[in-house]
Amino acid sequence: MKFNLGCQLKYSLTQLSTLVFNISAINNEYQKVLQSHLQIEPQLVFDEYIEPYAKNQYFRLNAPSGKLEISYQATVELSHFYEKPDAIPEVLPGDLPLDTLHYLYPSRYCQSDKLTRLAQYEFGDLKPGYSRVTAICNWIYDNVSYLSFSSNQNTSAYDTATERVGVCRDFAHLGIAFCRALNIPARFVSAYAYGLNPPDFHACFEAYLGHRWYLFDPSRLVPQNAIIRIGTGRDAADVSFATFFGAVQMEQMRLFVEPVQDPDTTSQDTPAYTSEAIATG
Amino acid sequence: MKFNLGCQLKYSLTQLSTLVFNISAINNEYQKVLQSHLQIEPQLVFDEYIEPYAKNQYFRLNAPSGKLEISYQATVELSHFYEKPDAIPEVLPGDLPLDTLHYLYPSRYCQSDKLTRLAQYEFGDLKPGYSRVTAICNWIYDNVSYLSFSSNQNTSAYDTATERVGVCRDFAHLGIAFCRALNIPARFVSAYAYGLNPPDFHACFEAYLGHRWYLFDPSRLVPQNAIIRIGTGRDAADVSFATFFGAVQMEQMRLFVEPVQDPDTTSQDTPAYTSEAIATG
Amino acid sequence: MKFNLGCQLKYSLTQLSTLVFNISAINNEYQKVLQSHLQIEPQLVFDEYIEPYAKNQYFRLNAPSGKLEISYQATVELSHFYEKPDAIPEVLPGDLPLDTLHYLYPSRYCQSDKLTRLAQYEFGDLKPGYSRVTAICNWIYDNVSYLSFSSNQNTSAYDTATERVGVCRDFAHLGIAFCRALNIPARFVSAYAYGLNPPDFHACFEAYLGHRWYLFDPSRLVPQNAIIRIGTGRDAADVSFATFFGAVQMEQMRLFVEPVQDPDTTSQDTPAYTSEAIATG
Amino acid sequence: MKFNLGCQLKYSLTQLSTLVFNISAINNEYQKVLQSHLQIEPQLVFDEYIEPYAKNQYFRLNAPSGKLEISYQATVELSHFYEKPDAIPEVLPGDLPLDTLHYLYPSRYCQSDKLTRLAQYEFGDLKPGYSRVTAICNWIYDNVSYLSFSSNQNTSAYDTATERVGVCRDFAHLGIAFCRALNIPARFVSAYAYGLNPPDFHACFEAYLGHRWYLFDPSRLVPQNAIIRIGTGRDAADVSFATFFGAVQMEQMRLFVEPVQDPDTTSQDTPAYTSEAIATG
Repeated sequence: MKFNLGCQLKYSLTQLSTLVFNISAINNEYQKVLQSHLQIEPQLVFDEYIEPYAKNQYFRLNAPSGKLEISYQATVELSHFYEKPDAIPEVLPGDLPLDTLHYLYPSRYCQSDKLTRLAQYEFGDLKPGYSRVTAICNWIYDNVSYLSFSSNQNTSAYDTATERVGVCRDFAHLGIAFCRALNIPARFVSAYAYGLNPPDFHACFEAYLGHRWYLFDPSRLVPQNAIIRIGTGRDAADVSFATFFGAVQMEQMRLFVEPVQDPDTTSQDTPAYTSEAIATG
Repeated sequence: MKFNLGCQLKYSLTQLSTLVFNISAINNEYQKVLQSHLQIEPQLVFDEYIEPYAKNQYFRLNAPSGKLEISYQATVELSHFYEKPDAIPEVLPGDLPLDTLHYLYPSRYCQSDKLTRLAQYEFGDLKPGYSRVTAICNWIYDNVSYLSFSSNQNTSAYDTATERVGVCRDFAHLGIAFCRALNIPARFVSAYAYGLNPPDFHACFEAYLGHRWYLFDPSRLVPQNAIIRIGTGRDAADVSFATFFGAVQMEQMRLFVEPVQDPDTTSQDTPAYTSEAIATG
Repeated sequence: MKFNLGCQLKYSLTQLSTLVFNISAINNEYQKVLQSHLQIEPQLVFDEYIEPYAKNQYFRLNAPSGKLEISYQATVELSHFYEKPDAIPEVLPGDLPLDTLHYLYPSRYCQSDKLTRLAQYEFGDLKPGYSRVTAICNWIYDNVSYLSFSSNQNTSAYDTATERVGVCRDFAHLGIAFCRALNIPARFVSAYAYGLNPPDFHACFEAYLGHRWYLFDPSRLVPQNAIIRIGTGRDAADVSFATFFGAVQMEQMRLFVEPVQDPDTTSQDTPAYTSEAIATG
Repeated sequence: MKFNLGCQLKYSLTQLSTLVFNISAINNEYQKVLQSHLQIEPQLVFDEYIEPYAKNQYFRLNAPSGKLEISYQATVELSHFYEKPDAIPEVLPGDLPLDTLHYLYPSRYCQSDKLTRLAQYEFGDLKPGYSRVTAICNWIYDNVSYLSFSSNQNTSAYDTATERVGVCRDFAHLGIAFCRALNIPARFVSAYAYGLNPPDFHACFEAYLGHRWYLFDPSRLVPQNAIIRIGTGRDAADVSFATFFGAVQMEQMRLFVEPVQDPDTTSQDTPAYTSEAIATG
């Protein structure tokens, strides 16, 4: 399935400032970037960096006082790996690839160390496997209210577990924290997503199961097969779409995500909710 | 039912210090202090204070450097009011006595303001009344591990709701916070209790229902009809059994609580778990 | 010095709701209410309650769905007790009136138990007395940014000590917490205040020194002698100007505070910043 | 300068468990491991992993129920880069290598996002450069009490900033959080250190200045030139010396660190406090 997607970001700077962006769709075997275009007004040189483990693409600008406009556009083809949920086991800590271990450790917004007992009470007796992470997502969906503007940049899974309100970012953080508390590696995903209203950057998470990273979205806001990954990290701190050093005011943010019609579209090739498991890495 | 109870507290002071104690059983219509004796070694003058609303008895000493020993002993007769749980409704905020309103507000260890959604999710749909507070206690018993030394003087209901471990004090704080979040006045009770092993000061709580204060103990450690109240307050901060200003080291603490056999004992007159509601104020 | 003051509060209710207000100026020997008028539209019966210790006046309404308008107006004469700051000592815990002790304990928004070392580091070596509380206020003024809308109903002194931003309520909570951490009883004051722009309810605090309650305002937003007390409590949880049970939306809030010109006005009889200590209780 | 160092760790397992260790001295251009020996009793196969960015060495065992003993011993030669503190500037965010950016972001124990204003108040006006990080370390040393067992695995910089008590791990976390709040990349260092009494694993931190990682130790417990690095990470979560999955009880932990006498020792070649800056990466 192919998507056209992108964003237009307008800023006003009152002094020379440094900006770091993470808005490009990643390019890997599950998600091929067929073409992309980045335009910066005024024209500025920038540094690029592809994080070697997760392949997130960052670029950095030193921009002068005045207006700044970033336009990114890409066509991306998703070739997710689909699996039957029942066939996907958890991987024991003794068998995990050693480079997934740091996705077991607590992070700024996912204090799994403080949620261990809660996770055990709610999910400790469930059958290990994909279905247990589904149970985590269902619990979040059932027990946490989705409410725009109910949380802020400081809100963490520890808060959300008790305050029971948040947005997609908070839902993802709580899902990650519960997984880690159960010894399932989990990581944060920032994404473009088809069907969000109003359009915005989306957040969900991946859990490492059956020796793949599978996608989970406890917010249920969009079909999982229409989530185009920008970056993965331990939590939102790693994949902020824009980080500023200086004096920067956002003036406008526009996003778009559209499926590209293909003559040979199959049934899996339309954005649709699915009960199948989708591996993204 | 009558009890002999008391405590022996030994301290070592390295300088002139002030100590405030709240260890005397209160005397009210539900709990009559038949006799009591307080002994202080060395002999010191002390100030006494009975808090007018809750009737807690505090006494304060200014004690010199050296050893200090406090011995308190009393015989107390409990005349609790018993009621069928089904007959006890909640009182609407519009009908609450105005002097109970401050037991609806959040306090240091009972941040009901941050637990509102959790309380609504877990208990919001239950039938109002005594049975809803019982459901709160059952939830705490089922979802929080009782573990000695698992919490400290800073631990609050907000922590316990998520960390799911604590002692009787934490269980009481969480019960209080949930009640307040549902607009049920609730207060902390410090107590002597028959059957604690090892003997220690106990903590439970009271909720205002059916125009009385009813006793609840989510720890289930002792029979409710064998709890002899020392003090009530918003939370543990109000009824610490001992508060020090200076340099004071506890060296020993001994408590005892024993039922006094009476020729005319009825069935309600032995320490026993009961499904009846017990009003204590 | 005399003031005309009052407020007009407009609400929209979508169901029968209970509202508790604490908006009346207290009447005591330092602050005499010469006349007052409370008007409720539609006309409704209400319950009144004067809290016996602090003399706060609460009233409660059960109001039907629809519009509700509360108008309060009063003329108040302040007769504060003035003292030279140098003459005001701290009171040792062993000499404190026993009914001030609970203003030493931590409360919801003033976690003095967690700020003890910080208070000791910053103020522990200062000379005890009124000047030490002044030093606390100066520290808050110098180290915390006053920024409207920077905090919310959950924000506490523990947060403000580290996040270093807040409004008058947060400044007061931090002042109280520091005092208690140094064994100085302190309590929250809600007030009308002359000179706030935009007009709003004000918050400051009182510390118990030299056997009186002295007023402190680390926000420095208004002259201390133009602060007319509504209520005192352990912290903001006790003296919320309006508490709702039901479905209540505020539509408008207007306040006014105006000095009343008197023929025989002396120099102390105009709103003015002063270095003298002002006792209010 | 050369050191012999190592540890002996004894555990008791009540079931088959997985253990991950990070106890090996890293090998890089500043710190050469001349020889090392790892012994495991009973003999078990293990997986090894060298984290590509920081070069931390992890090894993982699946160990059966019973006793387990890990003995690690190495000889390490330090060839630190020394620089005059005055010559070391901060690096502007626009000039930082892009792979250092994630050391600017908040992490589990270093919530720099919540400490921004505090850092600005205390250090914002200081001259940027090495000396500003020294000022941070001095502030921590002067304002936080070092007290064994005063913190636990949940304690974070946010707590330590206010509670003002901790151990070396907490001192390092606070230093890191302050640096990040000032846009200075900083990372946690776990280490062997000569002179700790009792011997234990040590924690300090590195800040990225003048295009190198420089070592800082706000605890002042040991000479900086006698700190042998085990691992670096965002905070303690990344470099725990031992992580368990299963049922593992530590029974004994012994560490040793001894300088190796060399015929051609120069003055920099003895463990000694120094005012020079030491780069370790």
